[in-house]
Amino acid sequence: MKTKSPPAVTLTTDFGLRDPWVAAMKGVITAIAPLSPLVDLSHRIAPQAVLEGALFVASAIPCFPAGTVHLVVVDPGVGTDRKPIVAKCGGQYIVCPDNGLLTMLENNLPLEAAHEIKNPKYRLPKCSNTFHGRDIFAPAAAHVALGKKLASFGPAIKKLHQIPIPEAKMDGESQLHGEVIHVDHFGNCITNISEDMLGKHADYRVQVAAQTLSPICHTYADAPPGTPLALFGNTGHLEIAVSMSNAAKSLQIHPGSPVTLYRPESPRSG
Amino acid sequence: MKTKSPPAVTLTTDFGLRDPWVAAMKGVITAIAPLSPLVDLSHRIAPQAVLEGALFVASAIPCFPAGTVHLVVVDPGVGTDRKPIVAKCGGQYIVCPDNGLLTMLENNLPLEAAHEIKNPKYRLPKCSNTFHGRDIFAPAAAHVALGKKLASFGPAIKKLHQIPIPEAKMDGESQLHGEVIHVDHFGNCITNISEDMLGKHADYRVQVAAQTLSPICHTYADAPPGTPLALFGNTGHLEIAVSMSNAAKSLQIHPGSPVTLYRPESPRSG
Amino acid sequence: MKTKSPPAVTLTTDFGLRDPWVAAMKGVITAIAPLSPLVDLSHRIAPQAVLEGALFVASAIPCFPAGTVHLVVVDPGVGTDRKPIVAKCGGQYIVCPDNGLLTMLENNLPLEAAHEIKNPKYRLPKCSNTFHGRDIFAPAAAHVALGKKLASFGPAIKKLHQIPIPEAKMDGESQLHGEVIHVDHFGNCITNISEDMLGKHADYRVQVAAQTLSPICHTYADAPPGTPLALFGNTGHLEIAVSMSNAAKSLQIHPGSPVTLYRPESPRSG
Repeated sequence: MKTKSPPAVTLTTDFGLRDPWVAAMKGVITAIAPLSPLVDLSHRIAPQAVLEGALFVASAIPCFPAGTVHLVVVDPGVGTDRKPIVAKCGGQYIVCPDNGLLTMLENNLPLEAAHEIKNPKYRLPKCSNTFHGRDIFAPAAAHVALGKKLASFGPAIKKLHQIPIPEAKMDGESQLHGEVIHVDHFGNCITNISEDMLGKHADYRVQVAAQTLSPICHTYADAPPGTPLALFGNTGHLEIAVSMSNAAKSLQIHPGSPVTLYRPESPRSG
Repeated sequence: MKTKSPPAVTLTTDFGLRDPWVAAMKGVITAIAPLSPLVDLSHRIAPQAVLEGALFVASAIPCFPAGTVHLVVVDPGVGTDRKPIVAKCGGQYIVCPDNGLLTMLENNLPLEAAHEIKNPKYRLPKCSNTFHGRDIFAPAAAHVALGKKLASFGPAIKKLHQIPIPEAKMDGESQLHGEVIHVDHFGNCITNISEDMLGKHADYRVQVAAQTLSPICHTYADAPPGTPLALFGNTGHLEIAVSMSNAAKSLQIHPGSPVTLYRPESPRSG
Repeated sequence: MKTKSPPAVTLTTDFGLRDPWVAAMKGVITAIAPLSPLVDLSHRIAPQAVLEGALFVASAIPCFPAGTVHLVVVDPGVGTDRKPIVAKCGGQYIVCPDNGLLTMLENNLPLEAAHEIKNPKYRLPKCSNTFHGRDIFAPAAAHVALGKKLASFGPAIKKLHQIPIPEAKMDGESQLHGEVIHVDHFGNCITNISEDMLGKHADYRVQVAAQTLSPICHTYADAPPGTPLALFGNTGHLEIAVSMSNAAKSLQIHPGSPVTLYRPESPRSG
């Protein structure tokens, strides 16, 4: 394993793939850093959904090795005064707008440094008002991949912009109120209730969409096909699933739907 | 052409691209085998559709050169006792669950060896019950790409799990009953009737969706726009198409729809 | 930066990603030119939409460096007498059917050479009638990436096939009639009115879908959320957008919808 090979540059956007926007960014990076492999993470973040982008980034980036460069563009404020930044978290580099995209990542991979991208040498010569992905972020990511020092991009930023993340809350000693924060491709509904908020979770029952689910399972196949179940998924968060089917559709739940955990022996309200 | 360059690792899943699941697998592979290029084949296999995955794999993998490593994850049984495997077929390597995904591939590229993935050295240290793509299959694929011997992954498996593939059948000497097995992106309907089941195919008529199609064509443009036609497509299977349009929509046919071939001079039933 | 590293091969098609067609092309390229990185541009060009492909290519390709090889397959005429070609434009290589896909690119990157792909050495041994992407275009792109001379592929072509591109027109001195030519992933509606057709554009008003929009803006966030606006986008063309929303849906406009610019002091018709 050579450690001196050029780092990969990953791409995560809300651009979709019918338009030439992602292609243009790949062209700009290839022109500047031709030896860095390009790795698509997703171009299907919901349009302008910074919270969804923040959740995505927090799950995906920690799997990559130190030195990787991540270009993340979900940027509803393009052309306004939100700052384009290069950040270093846990030895990896992220190039993105400073609009909260790194809010959850910082919990896992602490911020080591962040700089505003101001140096015109690291932008395209003609910069548009509407496509900073191509004109600012892509060239910056390529220059980071070439090994340029973060300080050469512009002034240091001490604290990144944070967005509010919905949090689960204890109600007394035996109830926990959370909500669905993401519905995945399979219709599995991921909540903001993490495994480490609970003690032994075999004790808990899960209430969602007017149903009470049987004890927390270990795998999707623990319930018969078509049956709803709850389990702690690969991100350590409680998920609501339906075995061999789509939970979001069959239970009609979506981001924001409330999910309550309680101990069966506890007195219930109502 | 250097033959010692690290092999590509391809990815085929039913994960879609809105979620961080594919990204996480790419991170794990990059961390272990940073010099192997990552090549997306598809992440749009229908969720949990092992048969669709088996058809995909049988068309795509034979185009790649010996040595390529293919990560294929369509895995409705994740967390159950279906075995994760590394297999070698026709000089290429496939890392997947042993659930029938290689059923059709083995017809083209005979199985040379298969081993269960048991060695904990080739898994992530902490393995979830719900995401073996990231925790078992991705690290195994990366280690295969690094040249690890298949025997080092775990015990040999003699015979892989097979799934039933619908087969076309002769009815007497002049009729052949088959069905649609895949509808592609253009709405072309691919059947399980292969070219080598027939003699000279100019003789045949094709009956589908209460229509009788003119003699078998050579190319999509052989019929005027909007007209249904049948031809032998690039996989050697009979396809039902509509010139410049979507056959599945306009003829309302889908996987499972019956397709009959007959010789016009033969006596017809009904 | 090594300049001798093998060039990237990009892929742009209307194939979608549920089927094994793109995967098969990647396998063929990898088998012939294993050291060239594969870069997906888009596989979501609308089926058989040559004009959409021509717009895509004209935006994306100019961002790439000289030497890049682009495989572009939007090919409703597969199997007919339209010619498969290798072309050189502005130092880059494009492998595609000669059906008008390069019509708009040639305005930016003048055609330097084009040759028909006839040499059987650069095709797959068995060539189908329905999948030239795999059998002709992919192997040709790989051989271009290996440095084969264009003249070795077949006879020179002087002039490429052109398709009609809708053009905006002046009506007297103060009105300009154009139309929407593309709706992007965000619902932004891109017109055929380019910035250099106007003098100072602060003077103009924009009429579209029975609405008159306020003066031309500089960025999407110049208008309050939910408000329609017009601006010159990253391609230099006038776009109709709705701040933080989807203009195509909320204004019910689509490719072909008329867009008129006029000077407010000018006498209006009607």
